[in-house]
Amino acid sequence: MSGSVSPLAPKTFAVMPPVRGVRMATAAAGIKYKNRTDVLMMVFDAPVAVAGVFTRSKCPSAPVDHCRANLSHGLARAVVVNSGNANAFTGKKGREATALTAKSAAAAVGCGENEVYLASTGVIGEPLDATKFAGVLDTMAKDATGDFWFEAAKAIMTTDTYPKVATRSAEIGGVKVTINGIAKGAGMIAPDMATMLSFVVTDADIAPSALQALLSAGVEPTFNSVTVDSDTSTSDTLMLFATGAAAADGQARVESADDERLASFRAALNDLLKDLALQVVRDGEGARKMVAVTVTGAESDAAAKRIGLSIANSPLVKTAVAGEDANWGRIVMAVGKAGEKADRDRLAIWFGDVRVAVDGERDPAYSEEATTAIMERQDIDVRVDIGLGEGKATVWTCDLTKEYVEINGDYRS
Amino acid sequence: MSGSVSPLAPKTFAVMPPVRGVRMATAAAGIKYKNRTDVLMMVFDAPVAVAGVFTRSKCPSAPVDHCRANLSHGLARAVVVNSGNANAFTGKKGREATALTAKSAAAAVGCGENEVYLASTGVIGEPLDATKFAGVLDTMAKDATGDFWFEAAKAIMTTDTYPKVATRSAEIGGVKVTINGIAKGAGMIAPDMATMLSFVVTDADIAPSALQALLSAGVEPTFNSVTVDSDTSTSDTLMLFATGAAAADGQARVESADDERLASFRAALNDLLKDLALQVVRDGEGARKMVAVTVTGAESDAAAKRIGLSIANSPLVKTAVAGEDANWGRIVMAVGKAGEKADRDRLAIWFGDVRVAVDGERDPAYSEEATTAIMERQDIDVRVDIGLGEGKATVWTCDLTKEYVEINGDYRS
Repeated sequence: MSGSVSPLAPKTFAVMPPVRGVRMATAAAGIKYKNRTDVLMMVFDAPVAVAGVFTRSKCPSAPVDHCRANLSHGLARAVVVNSGNANAFTGKKGREATALTAKSAAAAVGCGENEVYLASTGVIGEPLDATKFAGVLDTMAKDATGDFWFEAAKAIMTTDTYPKVATRSAEIGGVKVTINGIAKGAGMIAPDMATMLSFVVTDADIAPSALQALLSAGVEPTFNSVTVDSDTSTSDTLMLFATGAAAADGQARVESADDERLASFRAALNDLLKDLALQVVRDGEGARKMVAVTVTGAESDAAAKRIGLSIANSPLVKTAVAGEDANWGRIVMAVGKAGEKADRDRLAIWFGDVRVAVDGERDPAYSEEATTAIMERQDIDVRVDIGLGEGKATVWTCDLTKEYVEINGDYRS
Repeated sequence: MSGSVSPLAPKTFAVMPPVRGVRMATAAAGIKYKNRTDVLMMVFDAPVAVAGVFTRSKCPSAPVDHCRANLSHGLARAVVVNSGNANAFTGKKGREATALTAKSAAAAVGCGENEVYLASTGVIGEPLDATKFAGVLDTMAKDATGDFWFEAAKAIMTTDTYPKVATRSAEIGGVKVTINGIAKGAGMIAPDMATMLSFVVTDADIAPSALQALLSAGVEPTFNSVTVDSDTSTSDTLMLFATGAAAADGQARVESADDERLASFRAALNDLLKDLALQVVRDGEGARKMVAVTVTGAESDAAAKRIGLSIANSPLVKTAVAGEDANWGRIVMAVGKAGEKADRDRLAIWFGDVRVAVDGERDPAYSEEATTAIMERQDIDVRVDIGLGEGKATVWTCDLTKEYVEINGDYRS
């Protein structure tokens, strides 16, 4: 790994305000990395509403199992996240490690073990020595502070080249609320490397079931619409916590996701999720270019998304982007292999604002020079119109470079 | 492109005997390449039985449409194949090009246009100038000779680094028959680059419907079980022709694929298809290592194959192989993302004969040194036992190297 920051990194980081009701601390427990923080603890001083979405892998990590089991409880008091070891495919030892970590955190915070949420990211298959947490969680719970978001984002990095933070404000019934989020990862994607973890906290007062509905809907056009390399982590975890501190300002608790008072909050949440998801893609391993693929005219939105992901996951499309080659033939290929209804003779394809193909042929007005200028950009928009219906979707990806091969050919050792 | 031959290339080429009933010729029509043959014509002096399987792409090339339409006729007199231009996504011009080529070939051979089969491989979206064929097909039909298989294989190459040939003999009712095949491609895969074309001819006397059944069954564990990069060409074409010349030796015509007399032929055909398919993988773009992935213990053979392809298509698995890294955690990941039933705690994984994981954990007896020795080989066997049922499948792939990125980032220009 070069250690250099992705050329697609944001030019500035958001200034992260504290969110009432949550405190954070980080520690260097030496799990894998030396001389850097590798544990994050979030502490909620009162039980808060919690929602979560997790990897669809059939071989999830022990922490994912732990979180899923606890979610029915609906309340949280603490979150413990470590980088350096994913605690995945670790069998009985893995379950013992989550149990010990939950027990230590519960003792440190003074809550039930079912109010503790866990996430781990790093190498798969190595037993995680949870005793390394035991000594630090007590101190972390005491020292935790509200103004610590940027440090929190840094502690959960693995091969990330920059910390990912975002903040939004919204109003519920006229009362201002804040939403803060952090994320790590270089894809949806990529055990060992780029497990996607994200933790979002708001001071809004929203019931767990409504929070879950908001999160489940919000993840589809955001985190579930980004891809780096099509691989799915054993550990992907996105959690949303609502501390309810805004109740002190008179915000009446929201019980249902259908509540009209949520309009501003929903928009702000979705915008924040998109912000974090795109930051993840922009840190894609070896990425030099960011690509937004918009598919219109498909039979349905779901069909449009599958076609979009077929394009965004195609190694041939991604290597062409890396080579600044406006190879729209490969877009045709990726549309064709998506398995969704398509009519070759109705397809139209744009790179940026240059239409390169129309009615199943190369656009007669197509200019190689104009298209090459588009491909030389850092951010490239690809649009495909299928010409069959109203379905549309946008997905985001990065290019596939030699650096990706280098990073991933030489990680474990 | 470096021009160097794949390190995985076969050490010897099969000596290809003539097959009675088919003659071949090649020509340099200057479609894209200079100073090399780029057109192959096969001529059958009498109508022969024909079967074909084609790409599943929803955006197939014009020649694929042409062949599919003709197949119902069941008989063939000529095949024209060009490299350098795929005649895909070329709209009306593409249909005009196939029509003109079929007309020219029919005139040259003296047959109906529905007895002419076509295939094209090369760049997508560029109109194919079929008038380049018009001048050469007459001469080719006259000059065609039976002892020309190796030259035929060379004429259909694009980025292939070596021609792919195979031959087998079998018996039907005690009469010896021959099966010859040629292929091109570096995947299933890869428009512009690695469209898979294969043409197989036997002198056996087999009815078209039986031939089609044999081919459709034979393609599943062979050409449909290899992958280079998961991309699907617009042009993949595999055709099987039976000239029936063995009837002169007393071979009674076979009308049904269920006929018991086909046992030897079926085995030889499947073995030849596997031989050609593996030659395609061994010429995978940038490939340095060949990987056979065997999945056992899945719920069904189909589930095993999907899990196998999930592993074989994973960029993270393929880059790990390139880096000679026995990263079995990525195998777990790929099993988990396949969508098929899996139980993390029953999984076992082998690299070569070294079991690296068992019962959902790293194998306690696992030796890093022994596994590294396996990974340093050119041919690597990966086995995964799912522990749930009797389903099994083997798929083949190659590693993902920087050379793949280089080749595909800079092809069209």
